[in-house]
Amino acid sequence: MFLVPEEQLPIILKGVQTVVDERELKDKLQYSYDTRKPLIVKLGLDPSAPDIHLGHAVVLRKMKQLQDLGHQIVIIIGDFTGRIGDPTGKSKGRAALSSEQVKENAKTYYNQIFKILDENKTIVRFNSEWLSALNFEDVIQLASSISVARMLERDDFQKRYKNEVPISLHEFFYPLMQGYDSVEIKADIELGGTDQTFNILMGRQLQKHFGLEKQIALFMPLLEGLDGIEKMSKSLGNYIGVNEAPEVMFKKVMEVPDSLIIKYFELATDEHPSRIGKTQERLEQGENPRDIKLELAEIITTLYHGEEEAEKAFDFFKTAFQKREIPENIPMLTLTLEHQTLEQVIPLLIENQLVKSKSEFIRLISQNGVSLNQQKLRKEDLVNVIQSKDVLQIGKKRFIQFMR
Amino acid sequence: MFLVPEEQLPIILKGVQTVVDERELKDKLQYSYDTRKPLIVKLGLDPSAPDIHLGHAVVLRKMKQLQDLGHQIVIIIGDFTGRIGDPTGKSKGRAALSSEQVKENAKTYYNQIFKILDENKTIVRFNSEWLSALNFEDVIQLASSISVARMLERDDFQKRYKNEVPISLHEFFYPLMQGYDSVEIKADIELGGTDQTFNILMGRQLQKHFGLEKQIALFMPLLEGLDGIEKMSKSLGNYIGVNEAPEVMFKKVMEVPDSLIIKYFELATDEHPSRIGKTQERLEQGENPRDIKLELAEIITTLYHGEEEAEKAFDFFKTAFQKREIPENIPMLTLTLEHQTLEQVIPLLIENQLVKSKSEFIRLISQNGVSLNQQKLRKEDLVNVIQSKDVLQIGKKRFIQFMR
Repeated sequence: MFLVPEEQLPIILKGVQTVVDERELKDKLQYSYDTRKPLIVKLGLDPSAPDIHLGHAVVLRKMKQLQDLGHQIVIIIGDFTGRIGDPTGKSKGRAALSSEQVKENAKTYYNQIFKILDENKTIVRFNSEWLSALNFEDVIQLASSISVARMLERDDFQKRYKNEVPISLHEFFYPLMQGYDSVEIKADIELGGTDQTFNILMGRQLQKHFGLEKQIALFMPLLEGLDGIEKMSKSLGNYIGVNEAPEVMFKKVMEVPDSLIIKYFELATDEHPSRIGKTQERLEQGENPRDIKLELAEIITTLYHGEEEAEKAFDFFKTAFQKREIPENIPMLTLTLEHQTLEQVIPLLIENQLVKSKSEFIRLISQNGVSLNQQKLRKEDLVNVIQSKDVLQIGKKRFIQFMR
Repeated sequence: MFLVPEEQLPIILKGVQTVVDERELKDKLQYSYDTRKPLIVKLGLDPSAPDIHLGHAVVLRKMKQLQDLGHQIVIIIGDFTGRIGDPTGKSKGRAALSSEQVKENAKTYYNQIFKILDENKTIVRFNSEWLSALNFEDVIQLASSISVARMLERDDFQKRYKNEVPISLHEFFYPLMQGYDSVEIKADIELGGTDQTFNILMGRQLQKHFGLEKQIALFMPLLEGLDGIEKMSKSLGNYIGVNEAPEVMFKKVMEVPDSLIIKYFELATDEHPSRIGKTQERLEQGENPRDIKLELAEIITTLYHGEEEAEKAFDFFKTAFQKREIPENIPMLTLTLEHQTLEQVIPLLIENQLVKSKSEFIRLISQNGVSLNQQKLRKEDLVNVIQSKDVLQIGKKRFIQFMR
């Protein structure tokens, strides 16, 4: 069932920015292989983040690869932290959540996480299970494992201490809690972004303090968004959401800058490193990056929507953009139930600055300046129902595509 | 029953080094007077210290004065801290105590504390009662009340941080625990030595955090020992123990340097400030300090042993030292059951460097060089039983007095 450690290692380390430490990882893999005992692989999730995009998915894809190698995935939902919130009330992102909210958020998570991981092979645990059971004496024991100076080494704490921005003492407990989760589940490997370095290494320290073997830390790099510069983020609009429609997802992948193609293969797909190596060679030998991106778009869309939908998205992309000779980078507009007819959509067009007013839009129609799917529109067409994927063109340069 | 605040204030502030703050204290006294509600006066005791001397008693005497003014004394035995000990094992003074040891220590305390305070009017509470009931969430709440920078301002922490001597994170909780005790009992006043400044002010901060009125901090100065220089301490041998025999206590007070007479009146007695003022005047007008010290010795001995015993100690002092013309500063040697006869005491004499060997001691006796209570000793007297208060003289200058 298990691959030999030498075959697991390149898969596990694909795309990983830092591993602490590789020697220990090899030993753990060997022991797991010899005893046929899967390794326990931990990922902690904060219950306040809702929509997952490919940037978030980088760690989840790595989890999926470890799951496919036969290891035991454990997702820890940090509901204890979420329930406490920030008692000082300073951090708005840390408002205390009710246990209903936490459960509600967790459901949203499940929908997205299990697009990537196999639900039947994944253990999900809430850390309030053990953290709320700790008493003062246990907390003292926990706190005795670390020095104040070491805690102040964490980047953000250090900056705040130097700049005299108060750090509330309780903030020192968030890394301790995360570290204690590793003790509780006896994690062999913990995954996280590089921004989690301190917290994940804390897990190693705490496991040692409690007489356990130290977990391996796998740090994944940050994934740049479609602009090729900034970290993928919803607020910057440079993201590909895992819940986006297949056509949208496909088209967005086609917008990835050529320089990031290989990085996306490494961090956003589960392709074997040897295949990625070959793809890189093809690029270096001068193959058109666009063709390779079509492969990437199909692989990523398949991961989240299955082969059939990915095929459809591929066809749609070809029809809509390649054959019809309309620009590929036209914006998309999502319609809701109240936007059935073209007339009902006009307010959205104004909002998105495609036209100034309803009267301007009607004037443009009467001047033959508006087309839908490259058919000129007449006034009487305003009552027509808009279909998903319809492309509206206003004048020569203004395009928009509707999605439902 | 209550004195008016204006009469209470000088008694409360007698000998106090710092009060935080006096305005608030006056308000509390006024409110207490108006409502006939006693103030809650807190003293925290660490269950690891056993023998109380007059230096320790400074705060207890202040408590007694507050008790006599009608306020409610609450002694907090810090058994929770004692039971935890120091999980890092670095501090030897902080070995974890079993709850039996804590109870045993508490008993020793009671014997000594209730020589000063009225047992029937004193509430004793163990802080494990509320601290062991706190869960992780409560601890986070507690920790959120203080910043890391503020904690690092405490003298000892600051020094260690600067000198890179590790501070374990749990050490930050000792002041928080002590502060939380004040929240729990809704203390109006907390007493302590100046070395407790940080911890007692923490109580004020925590009470504010939990929406309570802030306690008043009364800091008592350190009492110098019989050498007049160092802080009174058992290890320096410059102490007067509250459990010492009346004669020893009386005689030790007579050794207090003249410059400290008034300070001892202020810190080691419950005399009214107006009387102390008059005593100071008498000294300044040239009255023999020795006579005033006799009064001080009688007052202090009465406090711990009652009038009758103090009277006896006074008589003994006069007989033994003034009438018999032997030096007043002769050392005392405590005998145990195995030291009955003079012969059995010889090893102690050697240990205390009064004689070099048994043979030297016997030679000196045969040369008529040894007396007991100013009677020359003969060899056959070696089997005589030594009585308490017997004075042994060897040669011209070596004196010792035995005590049982």
